[in-house]
Amino acid sequence: MQSFIYVNDQSDFTIYNIPFGVCDKAGDTAICTRVGDVVVDLSECERTGIFENLALPEGIFRRQYLNDFIALGKNVTREVRLRLQAALTRGGRLDNDIFRESAIFIPADDVHMLLPIQIGDYTDFYSSREHATNVGIMFRDPANALLPNWLHLPVGYHGRASSIVVSGTEIKRPKGQTMPEGADSPVFGPTKQLDFELEMAFVVGKDTSPGDSISTSEAEDYIFGLMLFNDWSARDIQKWEYVPLGPFLAKNFASTLSPWVVTLEAMEPFRVSGPVQQPAVLPYLQYSGDKNYDIHLRVDIEPSNGPEKTVSVSNFRYMYWNMCQQLAHHTVNGCNVRVGDLMASGTISGPAPDSYGSMLEIAWKGTKPVQMPDGSERKFILDGDTVRMRAWSEKSGIRVGFGPCDGKILG
Amino acid sequence: MQSFIYVNDQSDFTIYNIPFGVCDKAGDTAICTRVGDVVVDLSECERTGIFENLALPEGIFRRQYLNDFIALGKNVTREVRLRLQAALTRGGRLDNDIFRESAIFIPADDVHMLLPIQIGDYTDFYSSREHATNVGIMFRDPANALLPNWLHLPVGYHGRASSIVVSGTEIKRPKGQTMPEGADSPVFGPTKQLDFELEMAFVVGKDTSPGDSISTSEAEDYIFGLMLFNDWSARDIQKWEYVPLGPFLAKNFASTLSPWVVTLEAMEPFRVSGPVQQPAVLPYLQYSGDKNYDIHLRVDIEPSNGPEKTVSVSNFRYMYWNMCQQLAHHTVNGCNVRVGDLMASGTISGPAPDSYGSMLEIAWKGTKPVQMPDGSERKFILDGDTVRMRAWSEKSGIRVGFGPCDGKILG
Repeated sequence: MQSFIYVNDQSDFTIYNIPFGVCDKAGDTAICTRVGDVVVDLSECERTGIFENLALPEGIFRRQYLNDFIALGKNVTREVRLRLQAALTRGGRLDNDIFRESAIFIPADDVHMLLPIQIGDYTDFYSSREHATNVGIMFRDPANALLPNWLHLPVGYHGRASSIVVSGTEIKRPKGQTMPEGADSPVFGPTKQLDFELEMAFVVGKDTSPGDSISTSEAEDYIFGLMLFNDWSARDIQKWEYVPLGPFLAKNFASTLSPWVVTLEAMEPFRVSGPVQQPAVLPYLQYSGDKNYDIHLRVDIEPSNGPEKTVSVSNFRYMYWNMCQQLAHHTVNGCNVRVGDLMASGTISGPAPDSYGSMLEIAWKGTKPVQMPDGSERKFILDGDTVRMRAWSEKSGIRVGFGPCDGKILG
Repeated sequence: MQSFIYVNDQSDFTIYNIPFGVCDKAGDTAICTRVGDVVVDLSECERTGIFENLALPEGIFRRQYLNDFIALGKNVTREVRLRLQAALTRGGRLDNDIFRESAIFIPADDVHMLLPIQIGDYTDFYSSREHATNVGIMFRDPANALLPNWLHLPVGYHGRASSIVVSGTEIKRPKGQTMPEGADSPVFGPTKQLDFELEMAFVVGKDTSPGDSISTSEAEDYIFGLMLFNDWSARDIQKWEYVPLGPFLAKNFASTLSPWVVTLEAMEPFRVSGPVQQPAVLPYLQYSGDKNYDIHLRVDIEPSNGPEKTVSVSNFRYMYWNMCQQLAHHTVNGCNVRVGDLMASGTISGPAPDSYGSMLEIAWKGTKPVQMPDGSERKFILDGDTVRMRAWSEKSGIRVGFGPCDGKILG
């Protein structure tokens, strides 16, 4: 399968991807997909008749967010994606000189992508065993790095939805209270330990009613798609505030989300098995089949005046708790979920130091600074640094990627 | 000042109140206020011309939620309230036989109240010193009951917005994982320690931009009004899950909100000073003037087949951290807030055992069960119990109340 649109070898947006996003179109919004370096306006596509007989609501591709589209259900959204894929394939219905110069196709460089989801509730999990172990070693007891509950349930907590921004949005370094080592009383000022957290997030595609639960076998029906996510964290603020109710100001100043929602269908070829879970989990957390995904992850830091450096190469397959287990756990108490809820994985660290998903772990609490190409060092993120995250899957010539998840820190 | 509508001595809805709510009107929604036992439809009021020259947007009182109305700003909402108050006073513009039998006025018993706010983000604080101390004594160390950060900042965390329901909504007892005393591995089942938490909550009335902060002196301009709030909690689930990232499934199955938003203007007569804060707080948390409010609080438990019992009589004035400090702290890192965000106080416990705001404290971890009038005991909330909360202020003949915050537990 190949598109009539040119797609280079390293593109995230092959004909196998067909993700969904929202772009700014002369002050208006347009729901779109992307192939290679071309953004495809779905509302313009609709006028060609490729979605005929799908009974799509009037103006569904002119909304500000994807929520209403997603709420149509997978029977509809899956078919929209398949028709787009067919139409954009060489010899497909849009492979026609009449359309080639039309408003359907826009060069990606001319397009400003927007936050694609109106996020209702945002939940962050803590599902990488390696990450939880590293944090436990650094801040608690190396001999008992994992807390007693960790192997029995996917630990999670609620985060801030209002401050989730799309890739490319600049982030102001947060100020806050910290308790310096050995001090008697807290001080106030800009964080000295600004960090990233490399995460994947999924978008809920279907509502539940209060009191209802989603089983692990039903869960995929409730997952519309995946995105790349940077859960910015201020470690010094976090350390002082987080006991007993969890992280708050250390996290809620900003999180960065990639602009494209990659559907679960597009990720189908990249399923892999997860780690063996021992001790055995309670029945409501048991699952069958391959529920992890082989997604390559990379984090680069680019100083304002210097070349970038790759600081982490990880993989989503390392997750101990998979998304189906997360969703089953989240709703086992009857908590209702809504279309547009976002659930992030927690920092994804691999087994080796070069696969850790945060500066806290990479520079091991500042004891192993990263050497940058310009001769400077990084223990945490400095003003002017841009943190760039990338995520992609590749197998048997099929490549599907997530686009950028970038943020620059302003002082 | 007196309304031409009859208001009994114990009514929450005197002419001094004029709160805002949303009711179901034959399947449609209507924004309304209430005096005595009469609900007043604001859209119908508008047709009489009492809001002339306010340039209200078309259909503003027919929306599903108060958010768009609140977003008009205090200059407008304050004036709407004052005009309503004047029009509803004896001799006011609505005190007229022509209107008496019109669609403006609806008996409160005929009205079904709805959740009035579309809640963006919901934050819960932990601002009662007595509550934090009681919890610290029970679960940690009596000698160091308050954690080191508690006197330096208003501890808070993010909660679940999707499961906040209006008073009268029945709540299904949540299931979940717990670790029984002395057990080796967790078990799954309905919570055995279902609790209420007596709280007040405020509604944010004005947006900020990411990166901006609200000072304690600006904060009141961002607080639209107050509501009564029950932060239902499953203590056994909480105990097992909450370290290190805070409460999650123990809380997010449901919270109950009273249907009326009482404006900050209506609370003006009830300002009181807060406790002396020692050690002194950092400059961004300092404030001047009276920022606490004298609001009487009461919790009753009514079994399905028995008479009710009052289990707590508390007061909002006990709060150590006031709402202005909470909002200043929440935004000091640049976290943006939006119209319709909800921020709750945390459990409001007073100094004496009969003023504690949760069963956990009242029955002291089950060691001091409450004797019910029907001869039964309560350590926590049983199936069939209705928890009824009430809140009201009274001073110099002026009474302003919040209406019911009730929820019945289903097995």
